[in-house]
Amino acid sequence: MDLHELLRELREPAESKIVLIVADGLGGLPLEPNGRTELESARTPNLDSLAREGVCGLSTPVLPGITPGSGPGHLALFGYDPLQYRIGRGILEALGINFQVGPRDVAARGNFCTMDATGVIIDRRAGRPTTERCQAMCRLLQAARVPGLEIFVEPVREHRFVVVFRGEHLGDAVNDTDPQQTGLKPLEAKGADPDSMNTARAVNALVAEAARILKDHAPTNMVTLRGFARYPKIATMQDVYGLRPVAIAVYPMYRGLARLVGMEIAEAGSTLADQVETLRKLWNRFDFFFLHYKYTDSTGEDGNFPAKVEMIEHLDEEIPKIRALNPNVLIVTGDHSTPSKLRSHSWHPVPTVLWSESCRPDPVTEFGESYCLHGGLGQFQAKYLMSLALAHAGRLGKFGA
Amino acid sequence: MDLHELLRELREPAESKIVLIVADGLGGLPLEPNGRTELESARTPNLDSLAREGVCGLSTPVLPGITPGSGPGHLALFGYDPLQYRIGRGILEALGINFQVGPRDVAARGNFCTMDATGVIIDRRAGRPTTERCQAMCRLLQAARVPGLEIFVEPVREHRFVVVFRGEHLGDAVNDTDPQQTGLKPLEAKGADPDSMNTARAVNALVAEAARILKDHAPTNMVTLRGFARYPKIATMQDVYGLRPVAIAVYPMYRGLARLVGMEIAEAGSTLADQVETLRKLWNRFDFFFLHYKYTDSTGEDGNFPAKVEMIEHLDEEIPKIRALNPNVLIVTGDHSTPSKLRSHSWHPVPTVLWSESCRPDPVTEFGESYCLHGGLGQFQAKYLMSLALAHAGRLGKFGA
Repeated sequence: MDLHELLRELREPAESKIVLIVADGLGGLPLEPNGRTELESARTPNLDSLAREGVCGLSTPVLPGITPGSGPGHLALFGYDPLQYRIGRGILEALGINFQVGPRDVAARGNFCTMDATGVIIDRRAGRPTTERCQAMCRLLQAARVPGLEIFVEPVREHRFVVVFRGEHLGDAVNDTDPQQTGLKPLEAKGADPDSMNTARAVNALVAEAARILKDHAPTNMVTLRGFARYPKIATMQDVYGLRPVAIAVYPMYRGLARLVGMEIAEAGSTLADQVETLRKLWNRFDFFFLHYKYTDSTGEDGNFPAKVEMIEHLDEEIPKIRALNPNVLIVTGDHSTPSKLRSHSWHPVPTVLWSESCRPDPVTEFGESYCLHGGLGQFQAKYLMSLALAHAGRLGKFGA
Repeated sequence: MDLHELLRELREPAESKIVLIVADGLGGLPLEPNGRTELESARTPNLDSLAREGVCGLSTPVLPGITPGSGPGHLALFGYDPLQYRIGRGILEALGINFQVGPRDVAARGNFCTMDATGVIIDRRAGRPTTERCQAMCRLLQAARVPGLEIFVEPVREHRFVVVFRGEHLGDAVNDTDPQQTGLKPLEAKGADPDSMNTARAVNALVAEAARILKDHAPTNMVTLRGFARYPKIATMQDVYGLRPVAIAVYPMYRGLARLVGMEIAEAGSTLADQVETLRKLWNRFDFFFLHYKYTDSTGEDGNFPAKVEMIEHLDEEIPKIRALNPNVLIVTGDHSTPSKLRSHSWHPVPTVLWSESCRPDPVTEFGESYCLHGGLGQFQAKYLMSLALAHAGRLGKFGA
């Protein structure tokens, strides 16, 4: 039985409102044996109140031991099994720069690289050019034409850019042209089926054009493309859950992920306070609010333990304003852990608190990884969090008589 | 999505080393209400240190309530879903005596039994003959011929032996010839499909030959055969995980199970100290070490609580030598529980500790069943232990962008 089919069958209309706060990369690790994690070190009186009044647990975004990227991590929180709904890298990159990918598009991640006179790649990242240079090179590439389809070339940053091929009958079963190591020539694109062969021909034509256009622009004198992906077909949250969902996210990647599951995208401003103010303003227009908070992840990726602690405390300070809106269900969790000790995403389960009037008490009195171990949600798969949210929001009927 | 496909996609090369110590049948039960289990009774300062520094939990080898044999128990620990990879008893018996089963083989477990003059079985185990007599009877049976295929008859011990049928088009959907109770005649073998009918014909021919050869050798004057099984097709741990795995096991069955998943088989000696010395010697040649310790199970099966405690303490004493090698990941667990109170394998979850530098602390300070209940691994399916080991060993990349 598909989880979405089940929820579609059980969903019931209600006036209730659900707020999902995703503190990106929330989970952490102590720096010292027997130390405290970032979340445990932070002073979080408001999150602690939620933990005391609500129910806590640790979520596994994908499977034990599997470290999720932002895509799978968020899809799971939105109730979409991340092993079933796989979003290609090209699509994620396009979402990340707010490019509106459509159903006729194949998106790819591009890298500027350096090629020597013999055609061999000698630097796969072209010496990490500045973002300004990346933008300038992309403007040059925008002159490239491939007959029969539209091509969009958009800068991301440093050596990274996005290419979108738009046309009829374009498949995405195309290999990466990046040979993954220096000393080799770029690979020819090949398609695994007739539609993908159309794409492969366009890719090879574009790469040839790029080589010509960039010839005198060493070190950014060549490109590789990878992660070819079509826009996935995904049922919306409206359709599956009967919700009117809105995303309040500052960074394009998360706005893109939200759009993927049918959320409306709010103008969020640039600070957390702006986001909360947006939430307040939109309160009457929606019933599901996804609020994405980036800085718990970026400080973790920087390996900056005290900064991550500070970002968590900053989030905590905004909680009362959100509670003042009287949501029926308020969840604070992360899409994955990003321990500053590891300076990267990790597989460790993610501390989660769900507050509603219908929570069964558990012994958790503070919000933190070790406390959540004893929480009433136990260790659970993130993809079930939406079912729990809907239940606590009075939006799910009984299964079977 | 298949777990192995996912891991194959995410695996990354690394220099790290993983040690998996399987204390067979480790989990137990107290003899008295409110008493302590064998593991909780044992003095285990070194396992306790691991538990304090690492992360603990309780593993379910198959499903709640399901008591695993050694095959499923070990396959799960090796990361192979035991419900997906089913190893027939004939194969396990053949592995257990170090018989090299091949792709054209069907293996079966044989029992010597006693038949009376009317052809009825009066003792299903032939009065438990000595192993010497079992060997002598097998030598006699080795003279049996069945046209068109090769037959191997190899002693195990007491009334038990192995038969391997080797030839073309041999299926294993064949019923047991053992009627499972005395007072009945041996059953005729029947095949459920054309290939299995070939096997059934060979089985019936061999049994007739055996009856003729053993006629004057009562009480071992007849045989029954059961557990017909072909060698399963299983991807190796090298292929799935990118590991160079080695098994350091004294007993043939566990060496056979390890060979099944592609491990090299070390000469292990006969004591645990020998095994640890072997581990030390092989340290530079492999990166995954499966060390099997039998006596926690055999003492449990004997119902000898104090002996099982002693065997656990003996294992504990060897832990420092293993830690001195500086493994990146060290796991101590069991393939199932064998409470001496029950004198048999059981379904109870298995205490597990995983140590690495990247463990998130949990409140467990001693290694034992009740402590593990509060561990950071929670109650988990044993098949995910390998994913966790690979993650902690830095051998898995991110899933999705």
